[in-house]
Amino acid sequence: VTVPAEPDFFTVVDTQRALRRFGREPVSDASLRRILTAATRAPSARGAEPWFFVVVRDPSIRAAIGAHYRRAWEAGEAFTVATDADRDVRERPYYPRMMRAAAHLATHLAEAPVLVVCCLDHAQLGPIAGPDGALASPVSAYASIFPAVQNLLLAAHALGLGGTLTTLHRHFEDALKSLLGMPARVEVAAIVPLGHPLDRAGPTRRKPLSTVAFADTWGAPFGG
Amino acid sequence: VTVPAEPDFFTVVDTQRALRRFGREPVSDASLRRILTAATRAPSARGAEPWFFVVVRDPSIRAAIGAHYRRAWEAGEAFTVATDADRDVRERPYYPRMMRAAAHLATHLAEAPVLVVCCLDHAQLGPIAGPDGALASPVSAYASIFPAVQNLLLAAHALGLGGTLTTLHRHFEDALKSLLGMPARVEVAAIVPLGHPLDRAGPTRRKPLSTVAFADTWGAPFGG
Repeated sequence: VTVPAEPDFFTVVDTQRALRRFGREPVSDASLRRILTAATRAPSARGAEPWFFVVVRDPSIRAAIGAHYRRAWEAGEAFTVATDADRDVRERPYYPRMMRAAAHLATHLAEAPVLVVCCLDHAQLGPIAGPDGALASPVSAYASIFPAVQNLLLAAHALGLGGTLTTLHRHFEDALKSLLGMPARVEVAAIVPLGHPLDRAGPTRRKPLSTVAFADTWGAPFGG
Repeated sequence: VTVPAEPDFFTVVDTQRALRRFGREPVSDASLRRILTAATRAPSARGAEPWFFVVVRDPSIRAAIGAHYRRAWEAGEAFTVATDADRDVRERPYYPRMMRAAAHLATHLAEAPVLVVCCLDHAQLGPIAGPDGALASPVSAYASIFPAVQNLLLAAHALGLGGTLTTLHRHFEDALKSLLGMPARVEVAAIVPLGHPLDRAGPTRRKPLSTVAFADTWGAPFGG
């Protein structure tokens, strides 16, 4: 896939896909700067920009994160099997391929040349967090970080790079924060591996719009 | 601001700004379809697409939502004053202007020609939610809706429309769900007012990248 120098907005959005296999080629500083700058353009509550991004390229730190990630993936797989938690999606045509790619990522995370650890600072959320940092409103808190993460993913795709949004770190967050020297008040919201993708981006398939968009009240299809 | 037919991706991202004052001109069905389609291109956990979008254009429903929103805003303002909750941001140069625009929106929400109620279905989150719908991992849950909301906002901006991400509905969510006939298992994540903006979009100012992006460990500036 060749990427035009000034890619069209809707082409970028319509062809974004989770890409989970990466070549060993590094990601340039200029690309990372452009991607991170795009992330910080996102909206946030009170305009506080309560985010931080730790760009992990050091191989030993990547390896340590990768080892935790793999264990969390294996535990998650066991839980899913034990509780039949994927019964609602596993018959969908895309599902086996997606799970194979996700399993590959779980055992090769450290091979992504960059892991961007996306962080939310509870001390910059004003009334959304209490004085102790506990979230008074999780929905409002995460509304101030995932738009930035999405900008990051879209910008990477616009530059011809690949990545995917992961939140498995929730099973090893304390170890991760300790590894990176993060303060207690800051939460990890996502780890985004980035690199030159070995798979192709979209276009993606989605449910018909009329099944997820309603007009004025619940269940009335938005016909457009 | 004129918008090219095929706007460049980075121009759209770099000039996104919360726009909170709208003209009365309606938003076309074609624009709404394009915006909602962009929203559904976002990633989600397990590829489940656990979202719904209720496109509210009915004036009486907008008025009812607007009345709730105004009361929630007033209560929020009183709380902020009582707890001094904006002490960390109120000296920033953008803050008074942002708050004036937000206060305007609070008293004029119903005048936006469209309110998009962005919803997250807890029943489609697999192991991220328990059988009773309670979120086992809020961070993973909201990672499956706010990327879609961000796509929606960016797409609106790409078409020359304006909007802003709001989460004040958390103070009247039960009333809102009842008004729209929403099932218990579905949560409202955001209300996005959309319309033809009376104010101009970006470019926006942000903190220097070196203060929010770190290299390998916390506090080490990402020099790029």
